[in-house]
Amino acid sequence: MNEDTLIRKLRRRAPLIGDDCAVVPSPANEDLLFTTDFTIEGVHFTREAAAAEVGYKAVARSLSDIAAMGGRPRYCLVSFALAPWTDQRWIDGFYRGVHKLLRKTKTALAGGDTSHASQFVTDVMVCGSVATGKALLRSGARPGDLLYVSGPLGGWRHKRVIVPRLDVGRKLIGKATACMDISDGISLDLHRLAAASGVAAAIDSLPLLDGATLEQALHDGEDYELLYTAPARVRVPGIRIGSIVKGKPGRVSFRGKTVPQLGYDHFQHRS
Amino acid sequence: MNEDTLIRKLRRRAPLIGDDCAVVPSPANEDLLFTTDFTIEGVHFTREAAAAEVGYKAVARSLSDIAAMGGRPRYCLVSFALAPWTDQRWIDGFYRGVHKLLRKTKTALAGGDTSHASQFVTDVMVCGSVATGKALLRSGARPGDLLYVSGPLGGWRHKRVIVPRLDVGRKLIGKATACMDISDGISLDLHRLAAASGVAAAIDSLPLLDGATLEQALHDGEDYELLYTAPARVRVPGIRIGSIVKGKPGRVSFRGKTVPQLGYDHFQHRS
Repeated sequence: MNEDTLIRKLRRRAPLIGDDCAVVPSPANEDLLFTTDFTIEGVHFTREAAAAEVGYKAVARSLSDIAAMGGRPRYCLVSFALAPWTDQRWIDGFYRGVHKLLRKTKTALAGGDTSHASQFVTDVMVCGSVATGKALLRSGARPGDLLYVSGPLGGWRHKRVIVPRLDVGRKLIGKATACMDISDGISLDLHRLAAASGVAAAIDSLPLLDGATLEQALHDGEDYELLYTAPARVRVPGIRIGSIVKGKPGRVSFRGKTVPQLGYDHFQHRS
Repeated sequence: MNEDTLIRKLRRRAPLIGDDCAVVPSPANEDLLFTTDFTIEGVHFTREAAAAEVGYKAVARSLSDIAAMGGRPRYCLVSFALAPWTDQRWIDGFYRGVHKLLRKTKTALAGGDTSHASQFVTDVMVCGSVATGKALLRSGARPGDLLYVSGPLGGWRHKRVIVPRLDVGRKLIGKATACMDISDGISLDLHRLAAASGVAAAIDSLPLLDGATLEQALHDGEDYELLYTAPARVRVPGIRIGSIVKGKPGRVSFRGKTVPQLGYDHFQHRS
């Protein structure tokens, strides 16, 4: 299969592909959101994983970032470098997973690049949009705010299917004071939110996925639930887990004890 | 160095990085252009290459696509997977090359992802913009149009520095009937333009880079000059190389002889 054949094949399902760039309308009165996430063989998945699940997850990771900003996904670029072992059947499966989630979230596939490498690498860019000036940031949490998550935690060992919380994110616009998604474990991600806001965070309790331990819920990655704060008087969806307090910026405590940041750090886990 | 430290370091030069997504204004009354290009060790560069040149080229390849549409680059996402051999000094050099070209073209670094792989992989996404409905496409060439390139050709053996032809692209808005950039050799890329337009193309002569042969100019890749067509009565910048004719869609001829498509095809050159 040559590149033009592959592109023709992809194009049937992505009418925007074909020129040097995708050309799409710019949404009026909205800010644009950009995010991009690698999904790499040996780092984010193993060769044994089902191709459709790899494609689904690659898209889900980027959509979760759009959800964390309260945005609506618009356009997506899916680039991949084929490995020597990835055959046409595997790529078809990968694309089935990609399209399943794009369809569900009304995100248009606008293009991507194709190449080859010694391991399979995909990079998924999503452009979303949000009403001008309304994006949810990490930096607005204030002492007295309550702290929430969008669902039970437990990390990659217990998370079966990632559901990007786009609906929750949109409901938080104008209500949440800070928001982000939990990709590297709540201990590390809450530390980041608290540090960006210049506050400390106190967790009282954590909702657990079936079979997960508290340690896994605190430190394992890949929950892709939203983590957010709102003033006590504001009603928001989700599960209350604690509150924002004065204290050393970035400090995270669980029932009074400081929680170390053991979450997944992509550079400390270099293989 | 951990991920947060690396991100803090990058952030100093890219104030938009920090939240789950970059948040940027949407340009009013313009279409958005999206393009993304991998630059992969062993495919697009070797370990012996200067880091700054790798960074510069990674950005130049995507900017050339924006130029080909007549667009103005706006925002850029630079993602990279570090290889075991890429040290801090190499990454600093890589970023020097990236920033050199971003500064020159007034393109804002809006984010990116970081990971690791067995070879160095970078993916550069550029979002550009162009007046609504005015983007230059590959599909508008008509018999009788004249055929142009923005500069002499010869391919990667002779091309020292890639200069994305953003200025030329913008001057072609409202004038050129079709346009693309030459990344895989003019024989293959002109075939693509002619096929997209449903016409044939006849080359009379080709301007050559110093020391380049006609074969290299026809078939080697990485020229990154623009290739475009315009009606005879319309004045456009560049060097005239031939004309668009009736004939088998996609056929390319040089002085009457059919030219085979020997240009760089990323899938036929799989290592």
